[in-house]
Amino acid sequence: MKRSVFYVSDRTGITAEMLGQSLITQFDSFQFQRYTLPFIDSPERAQEAIAAINLAARTDGQRPLVFSTLINESVRRTLRTAEALVLDFFEVFIAPLESELGAPSSHAVGKSHGTGDLHTYTQRMNAINFSMAHDDGAAGKGLSEAEIILVGVSRCGKTPTSLYLAMQFGIKAANYPLIPEDLDKQQLPSALLAWRKKLWGLSIRPERLHQIRSERRPDSSYASLANCRHEIQAAEAMMRAHGIPFLESTNMSIEELSTTILHQTGLARHLY
Amino acid sequence: MKRSVFYVSDRTGITAEMLGQSLITQFDSFQFQRYTLPFIDSPERAQEAIAAINLAARTDGQRPLVFSTLINESVRRTLRTAEALVLDFFEVFIAPLESELGAPSSHAVGKSHGTGDLHTYTQRMNAINFSMAHDDGAAGKGLSEAEIILVGVSRCGKTPTSLYLAMQFGIKAANYPLIPEDLDKQQLPSALLAWRKKLWGLSIRPERLHQIRSERRPDSSYASLANCRHEIQAAEAMMRAHGIPFLESTNMSIEELSTTILHQTGLARHLY
Repeated sequence: MKRSVFYVSDRTGITAEMLGQSLITQFDSFQFQRYTLPFIDSPERAQEAIAAINLAARTDGQRPLVFSTLINESVRRTLRTAEALVLDFFEVFIAPLESELGAPSSHAVGKSHGTGDLHTYTQRMNAINFSMAHDDGAAGKGLSEAEIILVGVSRCGKTPTSLYLAMQFGIKAANYPLIPEDLDKQQLPSALLAWRKKLWGLSIRPERLHQIRSERRPDSSYASLANCRHEIQAAEAMMRAHGIPFLESTNMSIEELSTTILHQTGLARHLY
Repeated sequence: MKRSVFYVSDRTGITAEMLGQSLITQFDSFQFQRYTLPFIDSPERAQEAIAAINLAARTDGQRPLVFSTLINESVRRTLRTAEALVLDFFEVFIAPLESELGAPSSHAVGKSHGTGDLHTYTQRMNAINFSMAHDDGAAGKGLSEAEIILVGVSRCGKTPTSLYLAMQFGIKAANYPLIPEDLDKQQLPSALLAWRKKLWGLSIRPERLHQIRSERRPDSSYASLANCRHEIQAAEAMMRAHGIPFLESTNMSIEELSTTILHQTGLARHLY
């Protein structure tokens, strides 16, 4: 079954999307056609949103689902006249919070992804720059500054996980590959020897690695299932021998990997 | 006034955090001490969460605020016994959705940041790798593949915005600096001439740029307010002369910049 889903927000729509995504994935048997309508910040723009929603309603022959994060009450009231199930997130939660805190909300639009103060901004930027400069074994010298160093075979997810740790939590995350030479010798790359306590491994199922590597270099020995099996077995043996904790990344998103690492290492995040 | 805030989830807690953040920023006069408790996926783990929450309640002399995304009803019921205002997101929204869709929810934990199919995963990875390989004017040859090329002076936010476009939307975003030599000549870097339609500018207020550059190279002429003023004025003049649309990044987060660019360019996102 098909349904149209609209994420409507007076700002970026990122919160509305995340919210709606986590809800609609609970309904497996539907196919959702998704639209994001950001910057709906006036009754006029709300009318435009309604036109789009009502058009989908007529085309589908079904009411669309609308997940909204609208601070402004008149915009919210306007949107409510759409031919849709409108679930507004502020409408539901602001009242109990105002009552608990004994204070009115500020009704100010667009604060959730604030740029924050200069210090916080700088930490985020520094972490991102650090992670980019220390990707895939680059700039081994700077590893003393790393808060964590991800290790694993090529294409197991080290790069995006490092970047996400930097972007979301402000953590200086480096990553360093375990290459066939290291694996054959069962020795850690020498640049890592001084930083064993910071090492965290990523592993992956050979079948999945084979798929991922095949997208990049089809029919290469590098991507062959046999080679993927061999590399992963050797990498896991080495990580075990050196007491490096590791996660199996196969069924985890970048978000889940990063959060799990943050949680299991006990690293302090620098951003909220 | 101080209040403790807990983000509790059976998975990563990212949705609960984003939810709670957008709500508590509506209450300016409070200072919120934030804690994330991820992977609360059994009544036993819920008891541990409750212990932490109740300790904060006693220490603060005030009920903490708890924002939760818990699929499992028994975990949710357990958490509700904490000495806190518990606002669970699934509790509020699942019922109206089940009724609208005429179908029960799957009650499956942890689907919101799914790894997706191999195709989607590969698109996300390729975009991240592309954006890293085409950061700050590197690998000019690959720009034919870029979906967008961000331009602007050093430290105006190009790198994190490119990465976010790649990570969040799967867009191949390159970035290319406008350096003093280009600005003095009022000429676009030659590598960009073939790709004018893909160019999007970032600008920033001179005072903010001065602050940001000073963190990196204090007391340099590079960071001086006079130089920042000069560079930005020249960059904006050049972008106007070449018909390159640009955004002022000063008060925008990476999230807002990226979403605004997506919206204004009409680029198609590859991920939801």
